[in-house]
Amino acid sequence: MTSQAADGGSPQRLAFLGPEGTFTEAALRRLPGSADAVRLPFTSVDAALDAVRTGGVDAAVVPIENSVEGGVSATLDALAGGAPLVVVGEVLVPVAFVLAARPGAALGGVTRVGSHPHALAQCRGWLSAHLPAARTVPALSTAAAAQALTAGDAPYDAVLCAEVAARTWGLDVLAEDVADNATAVTRFVVVARPGLVPEPTGADKTTLAASLAQDRAGALLELLEQFAARGVNLTRIESRPVGTELGRYSFSIDCEGHLSDPRVGEALMGLRRVCASVRFLGSYPRADGAAPSSPPGTSDADFTAAREWLSRMRAGESE
Amino acid sequence: MTSQAADGGSPQRLAFLGPEGTFTEAALRRLPGSADAVRLPFTSVDAALDAVRTGGVDAAVVPIENSVEGGVSATLDALAGGAPLVVVGEVLVPVAFVLAARPGAALGGVTRVGSHPHALAQCRGWLSAHLPAARTVPALSTAAAAQALTAGDAPYDAVLCAEVAARTWGLDVLAEDVADNATAVTRFVVVARPGLVPEPTGADKTTLAASLAQDRAGALLELLEQFAARGVNLTRIESRPVGTELGRYSFSIDCEGHLSDPRVGEALMGLRRVCASVRFLGSYPRADGAAPSSPPGTSDADFTAAREWLSRMRAGESE
Amino acid sequence: MTSQAADGGSPQRLAFLGPEGTFTEAALRRLPGSADAVRLPFTSVDAALDAVRTGGVDAAVVPIENSVEGGVSATLDALAGGAPLVVVGEVLVPVAFVLAARPGAALGGVTRVGSHPHALAQCRGWLSAHLPAARTVPALSTAAAAQALTAGDAPYDAVLCAEVAARTWGLDVLAEDVADNATAVTRFVVVARPGLVPEPTGADKTTLAASLAQDRAGALLELLEQFAARGVNLTRIESRPVGTELGRYSFSIDCEGHLSDPRVGEALMGLRRVCASVRFLGSYPRADGAAPSSPPGTSDADFTAAREWLSRMRAGESE
Amino acid sequence: MTSQAADGGSPQRLAFLGPEGTFTEAALRRLPGSADAVRLPFTSVDAALDAVRTGGVDAAVVPIENSVEGGVSATLDALAGGAPLVVVGEVLVPVAFVLAARPGAALGGVTRVGSHPHALAQCRGWLSAHLPAARTVPALSTAAAAQALTAGDAPYDAVLCAEVAARTWGLDVLAEDVADNATAVTRFVVVARPGLVPEPTGADKTTLAASLAQDRAGALLELLEQFAARGVNLTRIESRPVGTELGRYSFSIDCEGHLSDPRVGEALMGLRRVCASVRFLGSYPRADGAAPSSPPGTSDADFTAAREWLSRMRAGESE
Repeated sequence: MTSQAADGGSPQRLAFLGPEGTFTEAALRRLPGSADAVRLPFTSVDAALDAVRTGGVDAAVVPIENSVEGGVSATLDALAGGAPLVVVGEVLVPVAFVLAARPGAALGGVTRVGSHPHALAQCRGWLSAHLPAARTVPALSTAAAAQALTAGDAPYDAVLCAEVAARTWGLDVLAEDVADNATAVTRFVVVARPGLVPEPTGADKTTLAASLAQDRAGALLELLEQFAARGVNLTRIESRPVGTELGRYSFSIDCEGHLSDPRVGEALMGLRRVCASVRFLGSYPRADGAAPSSPPGTSDADFTAAREWLSRMRAGESE
Repeated sequence: MTSQAADGGSPQRLAFLGPEGTFTEAALRRLPGSADAVRLPFTSVDAALDAVRTGGVDAAVVPIENSVEGGVSATLDALAGGAPLVVVGEVLVPVAFVLAARPGAALGGVTRVGSHPHALAQCRGWLSAHLPAARTVPALSTAAAAQALTAGDAPYDAVLCAEVAARTWGLDVLAEDVADNATAVTRFVVVARPGLVPEPTGADKTTLAASLAQDRAGALLELLEQFAARGVNLTRIESRPVGTELGRYSFSIDCEGHLSDPRVGEALMGLRRVCASVRFLGSYPRADGAAPSSPPGTSDADFTAAREWLSRMRAGESE
Repeated sequence: MTSQAADGGSPQRLAFLGPEGTFTEAALRRLPGSADAVRLPFTSVDAALDAVRTGGVDAAVVPIENSVEGGVSATLDALAGGAPLVVVGEVLVPVAFVLAARPGAALGGVTRVGSHPHALAQCRGWLSAHLPAARTVPALSTAAAAQALTAGDAPYDAVLCAEVAARTWGLDVLAEDVADNATAVTRFVVVARPGLVPEPTGADKTTLAASLAQDRAGALLELLEQFAARGVNLTRIESRPVGTELGRYSFSIDCEGHLSDPRVGEALMGLRRVCASVRFLGSYPRADGAAPSSPPGTSDADFTAAREWLSRMRAGESE
Repeated sequence: MTSQAADGGSPQRLAFLGPEGTFTEAALRRLPGSADAVRLPFTSVDAALDAVRTGGVDAAVVPIENSVEGGVSATLDALAGGAPLVVVGEVLVPVAFVLAARPGAALGGVTRVGSHPHALAQCRGWLSAHLPAARTVPALSTAAAAQALTAGDAPYDAVLCAEVAARTWGLDVLAEDVADNATAVTRFVVVARPGLVPEPTGADKTTLAASLAQDRAGALLELLEQFAARGVNLTRIESRPVGTELGRYSFSIDCEGHLSDPRVGEALMGLRRVCASVRFLGSYPRADGAAPSSPPGTSDADFTAAREWLSRMRAGESE
């Protein structure tokens, strides 16, 4: 992130999937240095990323995985197409919902609860237990539901949202920790224009998008074997439909390690050869700090030793 | 579908992701016999599928792939969890947007366009060319945008929606075929309670959800090899985060062929052995009628011949 | 072996790769019941196996792996072609050479040492240390060298052979344990006509010959994946040229487990489908008594559970 | 070969598996420049290769595949162990046997036929048809059989050998082309001390020996995937027992392509990382002149393009 920071006078400008009070804003606030940045909400992932592309902002924070806001596909597709962008960081945010209402409202009086459909689903158990008679009303996002409740034109009288959204829009919290699953997290990425790749930290991830040369199970196997042959572990793989045709896919992939690691570099070259297209989407420190697993024969030293041996053989030496 | 139909007096009851006028309703209308069915809109995929589970409806039509309404993840997760459901059919619907406004409005007067963010993205080129000054406003669905425009409380003066939505909500069509990509389709599935598996037609698909035994690239390779070893081709594979933990995935998979095919049956048994869990989610006729590719050695006859040979060997015969 | 034994009056007739005194005869003598059998030496593996085929003998003992007599290829090819035969047992014999000479000879007087070239190679270190000036003379087998020395027409004055050969041909042992590697063993197999497969003992091997459908590295990978997909471990794999053409191969394979094991049966059916040809060459108790490794998901119980689950799914049950 | 030639006065010295008249000598005579070389017969493959190691000869010609003389295992093992050697060329020799006897003998009078057991097996059909009453007698090599017949101390009155052997030892040819399979060939290799690797010709092979890190089917799969991931085709793979322990193997492998090819180099580095040991045994022109198959994405240009792309990505460029 620091490489993206404006040096000197003007503060860094950071886009996020808004409105204010979303989990995405909570993710942005966890970034080092974000307190001094100008934070700009955008109404869609596409809009936020386009602002990065055009230079309107320095970087954008968008959800990529398991989001309560449902932003995953939009993010994956926006990264895979258009002018190149790269991920330079990731943030994990615990998913913690509150039930919020206009000041003065009581839990007993809630008859309709609004929120993003994913949030409604994730709190279904709590709602059944505590508000068995309440109806649910879908909204565009958890924060938008809070905003509409404050504005007075919402078809519901309470919302499920992040605590920060309740605070932002001046709502009272009627109940905390209402998600059925107390340990869920959402993963956000920080996206910037291509430039210097962040230095390896020893606990990095690399993200890429690859589309298969052929519409076959075998092509996916071949792709995975390019990783397996170098001992590179995948942490996420997701298929995305390609363009206009059902049954053609590209794959959005996160793997352990950094672009500068020999094993990651060789695996990426292998993909580049066997796939119809490969887009490198960034190497960056893992939010969880976990070091990659390194099967026998795949350490940097192993790659270096193998390369030196090959050089000796090519020079006609005996061993 | 016919096996799900109520015989005798009462008509079949079919749920769909509403409101009226969505592409999902258009998909439902393409089903044989749907004209005589009671069609019931639901506000979320979860709600529609729960209605199937509880017996409130006979079946539900929901988007599963490349949807303009963004329903994919919700559908995949709802099928993978909860009480068992099965896919009994699929429908492909061309994605065709119109720009619609209240009666009497003119194209030149449009300043704000509302729709689902995916629809706005898919028509971005047309909007830039024909309404370069208009702002876009995200809505919960294309049909909900149309409904709100009619109701009079929408923060926009035109919408991108299906033609049926414009008709349903009494809007005028200002422009047709405004999607940038004229050939896009969305895939919908018909979901019912488990029961008799539809008979094989020779051009079938099988859907399943499998979660890996271990959090490793190797486990996905192992899963794919269970298909490859029997020559079963995949037409879709998508990872879904498992429960509370990032980095653990289940896979939503469509493969060619029918549960009753020997090669599909043996592949599924293989998955059942090597995966942490496998859920069979239905075998059904392909909407495109394409027959499966069958690599050498994987036809029904090949499996039968191999089984007979094994029996002879076990009986101590010589060949 | 007992199933092959002649019941009633006539003793079992067992062929072996002769002449008397070979390591093969030593292997035969280790078989239970062999003391009462008629033991018939043959001058080649082919001849011994043909005697089994024609019914002249009940079974034959021939070397198959790491033999000092070099009989491996002959055995593999004879099993892979011609009328079907099956392996019904295996024997491991430690390779222990003695240096033998005519009665009265002294170590100091040895100037030329005869034996099979493999035996000469395996004792090279000892010869260099103790008979640095002696020349080596190749012979057809270790026992044939001993026989010729006794007969008086040999171009050498000492031989490397098994102790039993020295005894058989009336030679004096000048030195024992002269092999450089004291722990080497040779593997022999007992070959019979097809019939009842020996009952599984829980520690069995299965032997087969498979020729690839295509002349490609990919075809061998495909073959190996048929084993890997069922968790069946290989203990030996050896390529053998096919017929008239260099570059076409069949593979001689030993795997863990028994023909009656579900995982072995399914792997064999897979091979039968994807290979140009597969010949089952027997399931029999391992000489070392080692139980097979069974990766997770490949036990008999796992296969049974998977089959029952498939039956339930095909019957339309929910789980 | 030319790089091994002695320049200036002294002629090249070439070892071969003797005696004179073997198919190996026939192979040597097919080498360019061999007419001017000093040809030295050795009684075993080991002895011939040791002469190369010690510098006693410049190179040796030994059988490696499908030999009628049974020299394969000895060659593979001698190359895999001891001081390093490399293959610098290969020769294919059609297997053509004659039936030869002492001058004046007639076909009708032949009662016992001597030869190497492999030769006897390869002419079995002809012998049955033309000499149904004759017995077969095994000898150490086809040429040794001819030599012994001439010397007068052989227990047979005709031999199966190469025509050159009949000529060498002054025998009459009673019948030509007596092999049952008229198109069989034996493959021989020219072995030298390590030095400059022959330049790539566009139709080359590379030979190597690799021992697996673990005693598992999975380890062989892993080895093969190192080739498959770079699209390198194998033309031969053969397991060889390792040292003292049954069930541990090394693999003798020929693959298409040359050490200097990017795809071969990367595959070899992969083996070096994942195998317990790898020995490079030479890159040399193919005797059959066949160009390697090159799957999509594995040409030199593909590797170069992938490497350049990786460099651009590591430099932070956008595509």
